[in-house]
Amino acid sequence: MKTLFKNGVIITANEQNEWFREGYLLVEGKNIVAVGSGQPEQEADIDQVIDLKGQWVMPGWVNTHGHAAMSILRGYADDAPLKEWLEEKMWPMEARFNRDTVRWGTALAVVEMLKSGTTCFVDMYDHMDAVAEVVEEAGIRGVLARGIIGLCSQEEQTAKLKEATEFARNWHGQAEGRIATMMAPHAPYTCPPAYIDRIVDRAHQLDLPVHIHLSETAGEVRQNVSQYGKRPVPHLRDIGVFERPTLVAHAVHLEEEEMDILQEYDVKISHNPASNLKLGSGIAQVPKLLERGFRLSIGTDSAASNNNLDMFQEVRLAALIHKGVNQDPTVVPAQVALKMGTRWGAECAFVPHVGALEPGKEADFIIITPNQAHLQPVHDPVSHIVYSASGSDVCHVYVQGKQVVKDGQCVTLDEEKIIYEANRVLKELLQVY
Amino acid sequence: MKTLFKNGVIITANEQNEWFREGYLLVEGKNIVAVGSGQPEQEADIDQVIDLKGQWVMPGWVNTHGHAAMSILRGYADDAPLKEWLEEKMWPMEARFNRDTVRWGTALAVVEMLKSGTTCFVDMYDHMDAVAEVVEEAGIRGVLARGIIGLCSQEEQTAKLKEATEFARNWHGQAEGRIATMMAPHAPYTCPPAYIDRIVDRAHQLDLPVHIHLSETAGEVRQNVSQYGKRPVPHLRDIGVFERPTLVAHAVHLEEEEMDILQEYDVKISHNPASNLKLGSGIAQVPKLLERGFRLSIGTDSAASNNNLDMFQEVRLAALIHKGVNQDPTVVPAQVALKMGTRWGAECAFVPHVGALEPGKEADFIIITPNQAHLQPVHDPVSHIVYSASGSDVCHVYVQGKQVVKDGQCVTLDEEKIIYEANRVLKELLQVY
Repeated sequence: MKTLFKNGVIITANEQNEWFREGYLLVEGKNIVAVGSGQPEQEADIDQVIDLKGQWVMPGWVNTHGHAAMSILRGYADDAPLKEWLEEKMWPMEARFNRDTVRWGTALAVVEMLKSGTTCFVDMYDHMDAVAEVVEEAGIRGVLARGIIGLCSQEEQTAKLKEATEFARNWHGQAEGRIATMMAPHAPYTCPPAYIDRIVDRAHQLDLPVHIHLSETAGEVRQNVSQYGKRPVPHLRDIGVFERPTLVAHAVHLEEEEMDILQEYDVKISHNPASNLKLGSGIAQVPKLLERGFRLSIGTDSAASNNNLDMFQEVRLAALIHKGVNQDPTVVPAQVALKMGTRWGAECAFVPHVGALEPGKEADFIIITPNQAHLQPVHDPVSHIVYSASGSDVCHVYVQGKQVVKDGQCVTLDEEKIIYEANRVLKELLQVY
Repeated sequence: MKTLFKNGVIITANEQNEWFREGYLLVEGKNIVAVGSGQPEQEADIDQVIDLKGQWVMPGWVNTHGHAAMSILRGYADDAPLKEWLEEKMWPMEARFNRDTVRWGTALAVVEMLKSGTTCFVDMYDHMDAVAEVVEEAGIRGVLARGIIGLCSQEEQTAKLKEATEFARNWHGQAEGRIATMMAPHAPYTCPPAYIDRIVDRAHQLDLPVHIHLSETAGEVRQNVSQYGKRPVPHLRDIGVFERPTLVAHAVHLEEEEMDILQEYDVKISHNPASNLKLGSGIAQVPKLLERGFRLSIGTDSAASNNNLDMFQEVRLAALIHKGVNQDPTVVPAQVALKMGTRWGAECAFVPHVGALEPGKEADFIIITPNQAHLQPVHDPVSHIVYSASGSDVCHVYVQGKQVVKDGQCVTLDEEKIIYEANRVLKELLQVY
């Protein structure tokens, strides 16, 4: 099955930042086979032609850090000191999460992500079978890991590792290749070094990447130094974590020497601007990291600390905030922000076969209808995507060439039922609590 | 004509931050006559009852600083140093703006603002008759001023002041009271002190407030000190500006003594977070100003430096950014951000008869349909409005009790024609340029 999308604005997010004012995208099965300006040379063997009539096509967003199920706790606690937010609000509620909670929380998040143009998300949570099942049903792409907190007995540690291993082994490559898995020790401050070592050892055996929270707050860095005599980056290096391909989330508080180490091991970084702001964690040194050559990615973190999963807003924030903090309007230009949300996001999530519109990539892309005032007049569509658009401008979404959002509605999921169930599980949590 | 809106979530933005999970709003003609929880005591003399079925009602946003016509230049220049952006991009293009450009640029902005829930905006620009005509036709509320740049001959200064005066006199109170006017010397660095003095004198004669840019960048503060021997706030005080009710835009770079002066004269402040970030101007000391008791407001500035006019995104940014910069998640809580965008915004724009849902205010309000995943589950609607929503969640908009947006479409303006004309005038500007 070959489908030609023609007469569209094509934003490729390729290495050269090309975009075509009038171009086409040719998709065969799961894959992109041709992209270009004007019309393709031959249309002979094309099964279906879709006239975009000036709509904009771009790669789907890749959200490189989150905890989808926590959408159930959206707005449950805001504006509180981090310790109180975590210990008095999040943890007691999360302790009551079961497979049902995770299922509907994740489904709610996936509806939101798909409709706002995210085609791939990284997720670190518990009850991951439920998450994987939602991904399979929804048609979205997921890079999934059972997040392991190791502040427990040896027996519990072993049980959690077993569960994480089974999940990673069972689901890697499933859902027609839309699911990939990782091993995820939660953070240096929630996992003893010996346990991180065991988890990483398992990642070696399974040949999977590692995903871990890193230096989100100044407090956890201080704690790491007082507990282990070194900052988190050398600490993780010395345990051997970075011997595996690794994606770290946040990386807000880094010293130059730590950047050196991350760069030496080609560690991938997920920048989470909204969550870092909302929780008062601080502001990552994005311009410095970009200058060093890091191909950074962007994550929303969970809806409990954001409080939405709209990657347009997240990318806009990543493009805006560092200009202000550094009093330099030239840092994080639009094309870089776009790549952080797409091409580089895919690289950081270890799914480099998506994230750009170019031959050889799988066909994960979104179509925007720019008929709203805030996307007009049209001078530079990339500027409008980064600085003006929001998730509601997304009209159609495709993953592996298959349409999952049509005219702004999910094709694969029952939105109304999911919203009903999400409210039901929240109500149950609040009653117990 | 009395209309009862019932069975809605009512967010009042009143002094007590009240909101009602199931409440009503009673509107008579232009005015709100009753608001409350449950049902009103008597429905006998009500002409029309609208069942909100759980939709959310809140005051329309008040955008306290902008240059609507510059929407024509949305995305025309990004990521450039301020001097280059202004001198090589904005000014040459703006020099070619005529009444037609301003008319369609403003119409485009007003479509965007109304549809995203802004019911009142402050505008400082040129060809203000065209702006006022759009406001009159659109049914939006506008606080308008001819922005005066005084770096010109005495004759030109006199001509500009005459024009500004005529505009202010002719339009104040027009459009059934939806238009108010101000006198607006552009900024301390673009107006010689003697000229500012003349403009303020005129404001006294007309009994109108003053609107002026203030300390947006560190550079202009330095320039002020080197040129006049003092920082901008004492400089303006000494000219006598603050003897008039004054609204200043930006106020990014303030020393404590300057805050003292602004407070002494009850000067109103428009905080423009996105524009200050995007142009690399810096980050206003909002938590400190709030702590001092300033009732701050929020403005988008123009779409050329934002690049949208969505007050939901602007309010979210105002709530997020200061938490991160100050590493304190408790600053600018949701209820404060909401009031900055509504009640306090109205006070800062000198239209205190709007900005809240309470008896005695005029009926400027918006209705949100929370049936999207990103506004679910519903625990706290105020949190969702501030942290999760965006302009596209607005369904209906009323100004002075009259509906101007219905089911997400402008009732009063021809959106399609406006988008067409906006692209036409941009094309013409680019050809000349």
